[in-house]
Parts: sequence; structure tokens; C-alpha cells
Amino acid sequence: MHRTETRHISVEAHRDKVRALLAPLRTDDWVERLPLLEALGRGLAVDIAAPLDLPPFANSQMDGFAIRSGDVPDGGTELRVVAPVPAGAAPAELPVGTAAPIMTGAMMPAGADAVVPIEQAVPDSFPAPGEPATVRLPATAAGTFVRDIGSDIHSGEPALGSGTFLGPGQLGLLAAMGFTDVPVRPSLRVLLVTTGDEVVEPGSPLGPGKIFDSNGTLLEASMRQAGLEVTRTGISTDRPEELALLLRRHAPDVDLIVTTGGVSKGAYEVVRQAMAGHDVEFTAVAMQPGGPQGIGSFDGVPVLGFPGNPVSCLVSFEMFLRPVLTELFGAPAPRPAVRARLAEALTSPPGKHQVRRGTLAPDGTVRLEGGAGSHLVHALARSNALVHVPEGTAALAAGDEVEVWIL
Amino acid sequence: MHRTETRHISVEAHRDKVRALLAPLRTDDWVERLPLLEALGRGLAVDIAAPLDLPPFANSQMDGFAIRSGDVPDGGTELRVVAPVPAGAAPAELPVGTAAPIMTGAMMPAGADAVVPIEQAVPDSFPAPGEPATVRLPATAAGTFVRDIGSDIHSGEPALGSGTFLGPGQLGLLAAMGFTDVPVRPSLRVLLVTTGDEVVEPGSPLGPGKIFDSNGTLLEASMRQAGLEVTRTGISTDRPEELALLLRRHAPDVDLIVTTGGVSKGAYEVVRQAMAGHDVEFTAVAMQPGGPQGIGSFDGVPVLGFPGNPVSCLVSFEMFLRPVLTELFGAPAPRPAVRARLAEALTSPPGKHQVRRGTLAPDGTVRLEGGAGSHLVHALARSNALVHVPEGTAALAAGDEVEVWIL
Repeated sequence: MHRTETRHISVEAHRDKVRALLAPLRTDDWVERLPLLEALGRGLAVDIAAPLDLPPFANSQMDGFAIRSGDVPDGGTELRVVAPVPAGAAPAELPVGTAAPIMTGAMMPAGADAVVPIEQAVPDSFPAPGEPATVRLPATAAGTFVRDIGSDIHSGEPALGSGTFLGPGQLGLLAAMGFTDVPVRPSLRVLLVTTGDEVVEPGSPLGPGKIFDSNGTLLEASMRQAGLEVTRTGISTDRPEELALLLRRHAPDVDLIVTTGGVSKGAYEVVRQAMAGHDVEFTAVAMQPGGPQGIGSFDGVPVLGFPGNPVSCLVSFEMFLRPVLTELFGAPAPRPAVRARLAEALTSPPGKHQVRRGTLAPDGTVRLEGGAGSHLVHALARSNALVHVPEGTAALAAGDEVEVWIL
Repeated sequence: MHRTETRHISVEAHRDKVRALLAPLRTDDWVERLPLLEALGRGLAVDIAAPLDLPPFANSQMDGFAIRSGDVPDGGTELRVVAPVPAGAAPAELPVGTAAPIMTGAMMPAGADAVVPIEQAVPDSFPAPGEPATVRLPATAAGTFVRDIGSDIHSGEPALGSGTFLGPGQLGLLAAMGFTDVPVRPSLRVLLVTTGDEVVEPGSPLGPGKIFDSNGTLLEASMRQAGLEVTRTGISTDRPEELALLLRRHAPDVDLIVTTGGVSKGAYEVVRQAMAGHDVEFTAVAMQPGGPQGIGSFDGVPVLGFPGNPVSCLVSFEMFLRPVLTELFGAPAPRPAVRARLAEALTSPPGKHQVRRGTLAPDGTVRLEGGAGSHLVHALARSNALVHVPEGTAALAAGDEVEVWIL
């Protein structure tokens, strides 16, 4: 029973430590090649250059008539209609003095250099194929309604960089370039252990002094959303030897251990005690909530010890683990950061980076949900954003601008 | 081969039609009860009231000493230290004139009404349990560092409303309230069919006039992210009878059919032709890209016919299907909408709602990626936001404010 003196380290300095802890997990050997759809939510492991031009050939942007622009003088002219060009066909060269009905996306015939939309033609409809017909078209500049070959990306140009998060748009681009699979960074396997004699599984009887474990669900859901593979062990009691045994059993099968609770300065700090003899440091980060943090390794496996209150857990995950995963592995997608105006005043401990929970409205204001208390899970459940009050700020007024991360 | 005259309908009017089409799928009979973690990403199907107070009992917000505030006069006093209160214990009543070491989250002993943080005590450390000791404590107002019973939510109060998206925070709250499972809206089964003679599967040889299918990957990834169960059939050619056969075979097993391509005014519009005789309407929405849209039902199954360009597909999904799913089923989570300043000028067809792609920076500016062209998949892959230019706007200047949806 003793207190350790605590010097606060900054949020940035602790994030640097988390990055240094996890960086060795990113190796060039540890890359998976996955079919595109299975790669959804992963980080790209290599730079990818376009293997072809996009579009692969000049094509029409409209349903209309492909022409040689030089054939139509100012004031327009009548042209003979030749066979139509459907999308997917390889058309013959366009004879001089003719117009070819062409569909959106269809290849421009050789010689044609412009498309007149059907709406501008007289008559403004396509003739039946095979029947002799003419059409009157207005003068049209070369290039009009033509999508040039390579106008989206040229063959050989950088298409996606290593570390890019693979969402629908990125996977769509890979498909457009003909890829069927893609090398991605692995998904880390995490052992998640919630601790505390006061904590019982939801669904169990709730005795006096006890609370239901929400950290396990809150963090496992956050980790799954971030693409991690989570192993849960159930709740560990406050007996250090029991926790140490549990960690020793599971450590060989995971890439990272995350614990909650037991890292503070109280008399019964199970994670601190279970980690005795291991290379784990317990620090006080200048952050509210989520100040007490453990970091190091247990049996060679990286360990992060988050504090025990639910909001502190979530803030620890969002401030340290999630952004470092994004930096190192390209996934999950970074939280969108925006500027917003406070709907109300707030106070903050000036020596700490305060992270409040709030609701960002479309008009750019953010309303705080609940107070600063780290036990307020109902307030958390109403929030869609984290509100940052930087170190050195003691108070902000309604209307002041803050940085907000959208959850 | 003919053109149909097209009157444009507004984005809002078309979204209303999509909502009306899908609303019958939301019935009180069709609800699943899922374990909390499996409910991640679903919409809550019922209103949930708190079955208990949170916190369930008054507890300490700090590691420190629980006291009766009336025992300590101005200027402070020395109190006898009694047995400590660990988290999870049900403590005895606090004798008058004593202080109990108490850990964060531990139940306040009956009679105690304030906590003095360990840092303010003299000595500022906990005595070894069982050894007689006293501690000098400052005067402390009743309620200090006590989390009152029900201060987050009271038993019986509304906790989460029907239709709430279940993310980590909401599931964490349900766990804190003791729930192990939760009634949620179902995940719709979607048949996704990409069409077009010009479209070939990625990985196949690419003949002249052909492009790789990116719509299938782009939309399946978007749909999976939105929690839909997707069946893909491969690419249908431009032969209407082949598409009709394929739809007829799969329709009984799905809740919704989404097609891409073949809904425009060209000469070869396979979806239009395959839907002949079914209750499907082809309309022109006042939107760019994504104007041509099909909507109706095929063999009794709701159908949405998106246009064939990749960007048009994505915009159709994001503007019509995704927001309607959120409204009706509570999932996926709504796209965050924020105001941003344009980094550059743009022009827009004044009669249409233009949707551009862009990159939102943390300083609140948004840069456009690529032009308005709906074939620009590389530009789409660089974007993190949709930029809205409302109907009636022909031009915007750099610095003008726009609504942006974060992807």
C-alpha cells in the first residue's frame, strides 16, 4: 500500500510510446493477399500503380451521335446516319460525312472526335438500325462529351499508396483496374481482459457494491469496428495471480493485450500487481479522463493497460490505440476531425488535455453530453463526437471553436 | 428505339418514393433478438427504459477517504482511519468521527457523504490495513467526489429509443444496464446485379471497348458497410431475357433487388427492357450524377435501378438507399453532415442537385476531387466526402459554404 509519485506526460508523448510499442508488428513479411471484398476495412500493404489507362479507351459521355467535328460547319448540317455503336462494341472507323448513334460509355469510332447529345439532334431520336436516315446536328467543338483515354488515371501513374484505408471507393478503383485481390496489412489479434471485483457479467445477479461490466462490450465493439480480432476472457477478479495466469495462458495466441482497470494509484490495483516483474510502466497522462495508463510487454506481447471507467476506456482507445493502428496499418479509417463551435461554456483542468463527449449538429455547433465524469455511459451513448480541450485551456465560452472527432 | 419525354423529379421526391417502397419491409413481426456484440451495426427495434439506476449506488469518484462532511470543521481535523472500502465490497456504516480509505468506484458507506482525495490527506498515503492510524483531512462539502445513485440515468427513464443505431457506446450502455441481448431490426438481403455488354469481371481479358466491372465491388462494399447481406450474380449481358430470367430465379430469396446500368434513354437499356410488364417506373431525378433511376417491384420484390457509371451508382446509394435504410431500420449510422468552405470555385447545372466528391480537411475547407464526370473512379478513391450543390445554384466561389457528407 503505497503511492507512486506521478509526473504527467503529454497525450502526444504517450501516443508516441504506443506507436513505438506496436511498430515492430508491422513487417514486410506479414502481409496477406485477400480478394477485394474481404479486404474491405483493411490497410493496403504496397503502393499500387495503374496497370492500364482509365478509361481504357476514348468513349462517349452521352447517348447521342459520334461525329468528326470538322464535318459540321457553323449553323449545323445534315449527316447520313451509319450503324449504331453500343457500349462494349469495337466500332469501325467513322466514314467522313456521317454520324454514328453512340451510347454512353461506348468506344468512340476511329476518326470521330465529338459527341452531339441526342437532345440536340433533329429529329431527337435514334433511327431504327438498318433503315436509311439522316440527322441534322449543330456545330460541335472537338472533344465535346468525349471521355479521353486515361483522363481519370494513366497507366503507370500511382493509383493508391501503401497504408491507404480500403473502403468502397478504393476497392472500386482496384476493380476498375482489373485487380481481383490485393495485399493488405494483417488484422491484429487482441486479448481483452476487463478486471475488477466490483464488475459482474451482464445477466448475472447484481449484488450490493457491484456493477455490470460495460467496458468489455464497449471496447470489443470498438475494436471490432476498427477491424481487430478480439478474444475475451471474461472478467478477471482483483487477485493478481489469477490475472497473471490468465495472461500467461493467452499471450502466445495474440498480438496485443488490452486490460481495463487496476492501473491507478489505489490500494488494489490488480493490473499493476499482475505485471510486477514484467516490462510494464504505469504512467499518468495529462488527459482527462483516461489519465492512468499502463504500457509495456508481458511475456513478449505488447500490453496496454487502460483505466477502469467506461468513458476512460473509450477515450484511451480513441486517443491512443485507434490512431496508432491507422498510422501503422492503414486501418481503421481515421476519425474525421472538424472544427465546431461550442453550444455552451465549459471548464477544463488547465494541466490536462480534456476529452468531452458531445453531439455535433449539421450547423457546426457541438453540444456537450453529460459532465466530465468518466462513469457517464448514458451520456456517452447519446454522443456522436469527442470534443478536444487542449492542455493549457482552463475555460471556453459558448461559441468558441474546438476540434471535434466524429465517432 | 424511342425516347421517353422526361420530367425531372426532385431528389427529395425520389427519396420519398424509395422510402415508400421499402417501408413495408419494416414490420413489428420481423425483429431479431441478438447478443449485444452481434447487434453491432444494427438498429434497435424497441424503446428501452433503464431497468436500474446508473450508477446503481453512490460511489467514490476518487481514491481517497470517505467521511461524514459534518465531522470536519473549517480548518480541517484529524480522524481515526477505519477499514478500507475496496471496489465491489458492501461496506459497513461509517462510524461518526472516522474516515474510511475508499477506492474509485467503491460503494460509499452509509453515513458518509463526501470523499477527500488521497492527495489532500496528511499523510497522503493509505495506512496498512489493520494498523491503528489517523489522518488529517481538510473541510469538504457534502457531495464532493461522490457519484450519486442514478446520476447518469434513473431506473425507468428512457435509455435508448427505437431506431437508435447500435454502435459501441449504445452497446456499452446496454451492458451497463445488465442486458445480454437486444431486439434489432433485420439486415436486408439484397440481390446486386451489374449489367452491360461492355462490362467484364476483373481478372478476365479486357477486349476492345470493354471495361472492368467496378460497380459490383463498389456497391457490394458500400452495402456490406451498411449492414446489408449481398448476393451477387455476376454481370448480366445486355440481353433482357437473360436478365429477367436471372431476376426471377433470385427474387424469392431476397428483400430487395438493385441493378446498375440500363436505365437511361439509350437504344440498349437492358434493365428497362427486362422490367417491361413489371411495375417499375423509370424516372429522371434532378440530380447530377445519378439522374436516371428505376424504381418499382419485380415479382413482388422491391427494385432500385441505379445508372451504370460508378460514381452515379455510389451517389445513388448514398442519396437514396442508405439514408432510407437509416430512417426505416435505424442502421447504418447516418452520414455525418457538416458545413465546409469550398477550396475552389465550381459550376453546377442550375436545374439539378449536384453531388461532387471532395476531401474535407480538418480546417473546415473541402477540395474537389476530379470534375463532375461520373466515370472518375480514381478521383472517387481519393475522396472522403460528398459535396452538395443544391438545385437552383449555377456557380459557387472559393470560400462559399456548402453542406458536406462525410463518407
